[in-house]
Amino acid sequence: MASVTEAILKEKVEQAIRLLDREGIDLWMTFVRESATVHDPVLDLICGMNLTWPSALLLSRTGERTAIIGTLEVEALKTRGIYDNIVGYDTSVKEPLLDVLNRIRPNKIAINYSENNLMADGLTHGLYLLLEQHLSGTPYRDRLVSSDAVVSSLRGNKSPAEIECLQKAIRNTEEIFEAFGRSIEPGLTEKQTAAFFRAEMEKRDLEPAWDLDHCPSVTAGADSPFGHVGPQDYAVLKGQTIGVDFGVRENGYCSDLQRLWYLLADGETEAPEEVRRAFDAVRGSIETAQRLVKPGVVGHVVDAAAREYLKARGFDEYPHALGHQIGRSVHDGAALIGPRWEKYGDLTSRPLEPGNVFTLELEVRIPQGLVSLEEDVLITESGCEYLSTPQTEIWTIG
Amino acid sequence: MASVTEAILKEKVEQAIRLLDREGIDLWMTFVRESATVHDPVLDLICGMNLTWPSALLLSRTGERTAIIGTLEVEALKTRGIYDNIVGYDTSVKEPLLDVLNRIRPNKIAINYSENNLMADGLTHGLYLLLEQHLSGTPYRDRLVSSDAVVSSLRGNKSPAEIECLQKAIRNTEEIFEAFGRSIEPGLTEKQTAAFFRAEMEKRDLEPAWDLDHCPSVTAGADSPFGHVGPQDYAVLKGQTIGVDFGVRENGYCSDLQRLWYLLADGETEAPEEVRRAFDAVRGSIETAQRLVKPGVVGHVVDAAAREYLKARGFDEYPHALGHQIGRSVHDGAALIGPRWEKYGDLTSRPLEPGNVFTLELEVRIPQGLVSLEEDVLITESGCEYLSTPQTEIWTIG
Repeated sequence: MASVTEAILKEKVEQAIRLLDREGIDLWMTFVRESATVHDPVLDLICGMNLTWPSALLLSRTGERTAIIGTLEVEALKTRGIYDNIVGYDTSVKEPLLDVLNRIRPNKIAINYSENNLMADGLTHGLYLLLEQHLSGTPYRDRLVSSDAVVSSLRGNKSPAEIECLQKAIRNTEEIFEAFGRSIEPGLTEKQTAAFFRAEMEKRDLEPAWDLDHCPSVTAGADSPFGHVGPQDYAVLKGQTIGVDFGVRENGYCSDLQRLWYLLADGETEAPEEVRRAFDAVRGSIETAQRLVKPGVVGHVVDAAAREYLKARGFDEYPHALGHQIGRSVHDGAALIGPRWEKYGDLTSRPLEPGNVFTLELEVRIPQGLVSLEEDVLITESGCEYLSTPQTEIWTIG
Repeated sequence: MASVTEAILKEKVEQAIRLLDREGIDLWMTFVRESATVHDPVLDLICGMNLTWPSALLLSRTGERTAIIGTLEVEALKTRGIYDNIVGYDTSVKEPLLDVLNRIRPNKIAINYSENNLMADGLTHGLYLLLEQHLSGTPYRDRLVSSDAVVSSLRGNKSPAEIECLQKAIRNTEEIFEAFGRSIEPGLTEKQTAAFFRAEMEKRDLEPAWDLDHCPSVTAGADSPFGHVGPQDYAVLKGQTIGVDFGVRENGYCSDLQRLWYLLADGETEAPEEVRRAFDAVRGSIETAQRLVKPGVVGHVVDAAAREYLKARGFDEYPHALGHQIGRSVHDGAALIGPRWEKYGDLTSRPLEPGNVFTLELEVRIPQGLVSLEEDVLITESGCEYLSTPQTEIWTIG
């Protein structure tokens, strides 16, 4: 495990340095403190540990890798083997930081904030003000730009090793879904369902991909609310659906899938037409999207096509984006496949890139319950392929 | 467990509203997004769950409790029972936010950033810029101030229920230390030590108080480096010390202690004078500090006295602060007991308050290895008392 992570860290730092050149950035400075508490997600890609005192990770276009950190953390960072030059300090980060800047003399310095791309927005506002103070009276204060473009590609464009990690997490998730399918019976509650998934994670030594209190998120029967809500006492009965939104984190990489079951009512041999029609609309929306996803396309075009497909079949549109990226975080990368709503900033207008891994997910509500699906896809050079094994028909119980 | 947490959340929100009045703040706005990734630690005190889309938690001086959050999270927040008024949105937080501001018309709005107090600095710089955009053209943009003072007291001044949680975590930590003491033998490595502590945590269903890769942090024998470094293959031999820095998180509250053992060399019946002298210097520095700690004192005065005591006995001073607060986070609150180094900002000049819980910790190095101790103390109305059972003599093995 540690070796997978260390190999990926080194790969990512090399990728970052190439991106600096592409983006015309002389120096990328990630400025953090007490990151175990307020965590800049980019540390998972270029550091592999938390940093306590105000710390600067500096990657230059010319390939220099310098870290200025508290002395008590120097040994730990050394063992990672990522930074050639580790400067420890006891009292203030300011002087060693200015020393490095005065040596490199960067004209364009990317730092870790972004209005739209939250994965590139780990610098807190108070710490930003402190950085401004440290740089006041130097020419560097006015050379700060956002590292959004670098982080967006660095997180979004997965290497083969990263894709392998994602595939493994997805396969494990599918195995847990299969085991769960064999255990469903009428009267099963959301809380019991969640307990099943938690036991499976424990058995397989896997972490949840998001907060355990709603991972899995279970929607059982006709009355359960949908959303980021923890499992309740709602039970699934015959003639109703049960949907589960679930993912795991394995070797630091996250899966995110939704699967759906229908419990046959007495006398039924297949799901009733109303349920099948809803399933087909959801499934067809995902297929519509999957056919459109390729490098260079922007997310809102894909989302609009899926949304149109769904609405044309008489269903209400879903109140969220169709797809987000996954990776080290369950909401990874920057570009989104979603509508042009203000809350998404410019993320749904950013071109998709090869190596991006996206979810495609939506749901509709019918009297029998929620009908929802979510697949994971990888963008290739010419299109996109499923990393999950898509659920193509409704799974029935009984 | 859930009920402890929910009771404390309600208690904390009420405390926050009283603090707004004390500080002359009309509205406290905590503005966050995707907090599972970049976590504002204040959510643990006033929300109890993560929020995905740009969200505003609004507590007013008059006692109003409003949350503006993504619709998919409304049900989950409702179940917490903290906010009277939960506004869900799909497309943009801006309009519902301006609606509330225009109704309350606050003159002074505290938001979640601070230069010095990192526990009050959860607002990222990019999100701050977005908030400025939302407020542009309104009078509110120029009414924003830091919520530092509110958060500092809210986190630092523990309620009786919180102190009980801390006591429980400390007791469990001490039990694990006792069990470990019975298992020490010559040749024991740092990695084996860490495995022992991890197994004990698992057995007792406890989480580590900080990153598992250096919780515990073990310093075995004469050659191991000290600091936030993970356990290595160094072994403790006869005639050497082994020190362990360890804490657990229980019901969301963290302990943090250091304990020390000496392995008798053949023929020894007690630790040699050099080791005892170092232990007494460390122990005496902590006692010196403990006697000075009381409400109204500032941390650098306490730190200086402990540092002076140590130096007067011929030892090098420790390269860190003497004490930090503990609570929901292992580095909690704002005020620090430490020197006036730039990296600590104004935190070592802030008066200590009743209800603060501090560590007191330091170490010296001698040829036999590291000699270190750490205790946890609670500030009372008139002084301070130990929450831990202080280690008053060096524990010998063999």
